[in-house]
Amino acid sequence: MEPETRALLEAWRGRLGRELDAAIGFWARHSHDPEHGGFFSCLGRDGAVYDDVKYVWLQGRQVWVYARLYRTVPRFRRPDLLEAARAGGEFLLRCARLGPGSPKAAFALSRDGRPTKVQRSIFSECFCALGLDELGRATGEPRYRRDGSAVLENVSPDGKELPGCLGRQQNPGHAIEAGWFLLRFAQRQGDAALAAQAIEGFMVRPFQAGWDPEHGGLFAFQDADGLCPTQLEWNMKLWWPHAEAMVAFLMAYAHSREPALLRLFDQVAAYAFQRFRDPEHGEWFGYLAQDGKVALTIKGGPFKGCFHVPRALHLCEELLDKLLREP
Amino acid sequence: MEPETRALLEAWRGRLGRELDAAIGFWARHSHDPEHGGFFSCLGRDGAVYDDVKYVWLQGRQVWVYARLYRTVPRFRRPDLLEAARAGGEFLLRCARLGPGSPKAAFALSRDGRPTKVQRSIFSECFCALGLDELGRATGEPRYRRDGSAVLENVSPDGKELPGCLGRQQNPGHAIEAGWFLLRFAQRQGDAALAAQAIEGFMVRPFQAGWDPEHGGLFAFQDADGLCPTQLEWNMKLWWPHAEAMVAFLMAYAHSREPALLRLFDQVAAYAFQRFRDPEHGEWFGYLAQDGKVALTIKGGPFKGCFHVPRALHLCEELLDKLLREP
Repeated sequence: MEPETRALLEAWRGRLGRELDAAIGFWARHSHDPEHGGFFSCLGRDGAVYDDVKYVWLQGRQVWVYARLYRTVPRFRRPDLLEAARAGGEFLLRCARLGPGSPKAAFALSRDGRPTKVQRSIFSECFCALGLDELGRATGEPRYRRDGSAVLENVSPDGKELPGCLGRQQNPGHAIEAGWFLLRFAQRQGDAALAAQAIEGFMVRPFQAGWDPEHGGLFAFQDADGLCPTQLEWNMKLWWPHAEAMVAFLMAYAHSREPALLRLFDQVAAYAFQRFRDPEHGEWFGYLAQDGKVALTIKGGPFKGCFHVPRALHLCEELLDKLLREP
Repeated sequence: MEPETRALLEAWRGRLGRELDAAIGFWARHSHDPEHGGFFSCLGRDGAVYDDVKYVWLQGRQVWVYARLYRTVPRFRRPDLLEAARAGGEFLLRCARLGPGSPKAAFALSRDGRPTKVQRSIFSECFCALGLDELGRATGEPRYRRDGSAVLENVSPDGKELPGCLGRQQNPGHAIEAGWFLLRFAQRQGDAALAAQAIEGFMVRPFQAGWDPEHGGLFAFQDADGLCPTQLEWNMKLWWPHAEAMVAFLMAYAHSREPALLRLFDQVAAYAFQRFRDPEHGEWFGYLAQDGKVALTIKGGPFKGCFHVPRALHLCEELLDKLLREP
């Protein structure tokens, strides 16, 4: 490995590790509900709870993050983290279903676990299954595990066959996220052509088309024909596409050792650390205006919880450790 | 009337009249579907159709605007406008209901009128009823009229009794819009106290709290406790609150003759004409960033059609004519 490359990887390894500690510290300090179990996700910049609604998918995601870190990262093998994951899992088992034995989960619950909103989509059920599956692995208790077959690709809308602007809708973050899902699948299958397609077609091209040449950062939505998208937030910079792109390009670099991919990781990670990171209270801001200024000061809400930031930092940490173990 | 006041009213009367002609010209040129009847609303800046989906509520709104202008404004008593309103009404009668005799209307239809999306809310039904009611008045044909009892206040969310950030959510545009509905009701009832409350509580206070002191314009959403709203577009400037505020303050001024209310009309109308107006293609832009730059170049979409701009210009024209007829 080039000394320059090693220095870059080591610098990012240090920053990412500290950032993951800060992110988990933020959620551990502010999001736990000691009374009813489960997690608050509507947190202001400093962690203050501004709404006590409990979104089921964010409960499942936080259980996943805690259990996964506990199981796989030595410095997170802390009883308090496993207890919080368990309290979240028990809360889901007790309250997520609409009725006893119902396969349908609520979308949102009151603080004490009564259903307040139901959605037709299956995100709630997917993330319950993923969280409980990982909790089963972490605790070694099979009662938490379902079939474990839910795959995150369900989150990524297909939309290709729809007419009109819905069919033309592009979401660079979803494409790039799907890219690393696909790259992992291709690696497990030993399919080099699919891996190359995942990197080029799902990561590099959507990234280059989705990167704002004027202010930097990834657009939230684009139109495949270059028309104006109808999503009001289309030109905002959201935290999660940047977190996903960090994972994607570091994974792609580790796969192919193509220096251009490491430069893309460096580009998106530098933007994310400069713009999204909150040095004062930990965790990242979620929503920037096109020019990169913070547009919403909330740290969590209906869509942002303890998931994308720690997952991305954790996965990048793993990838960097693996790269740096090489001679 | 003070000469200065008269000059201001006359200047706005001229600008508004020309702008109403331009707005109706835009929709008449670009939105009619000669093949299936009804109206396209997804129009780009220059009027090009970027999606042929037909939103039922926007069909009803456009029928209302055309029929109302035909019936009440001499220069719009044009056969082509009534024919277009009639073609829109026939399209709704033929296609809006989910099934024969069903009280439920679809939310969105394909170009040829097949339902593609259904929503639980009653906006589609309300605006069908309003449009067909006005079409019945304009044509003198009772077959279009339903009971005519639907009131627009249904559009304004109450939300006060909900816990959390949904309960604290403020929408200055909805408050101001509700203000002029309420003022008209108070005038009909001869209730001076209610009229004063409508002006002070629903118009002036929400306007002053909702006006961006830095860049001008009304915020889309606010939080009653001053926390950060969770709507990504909270600090954007949308066209319709400004159109509603123009109507509200001119109506309030005509009611009370309080010069401060005319100054508020002048303030919001000047902002709207400077920022939303498109001198090149007619009609207004719908969505500005906080700093007043155009964020979406579309002229129409799922929420913006031939309704708020012409309705506001038409009502302001009426109010100004009435004021200027005074000695």
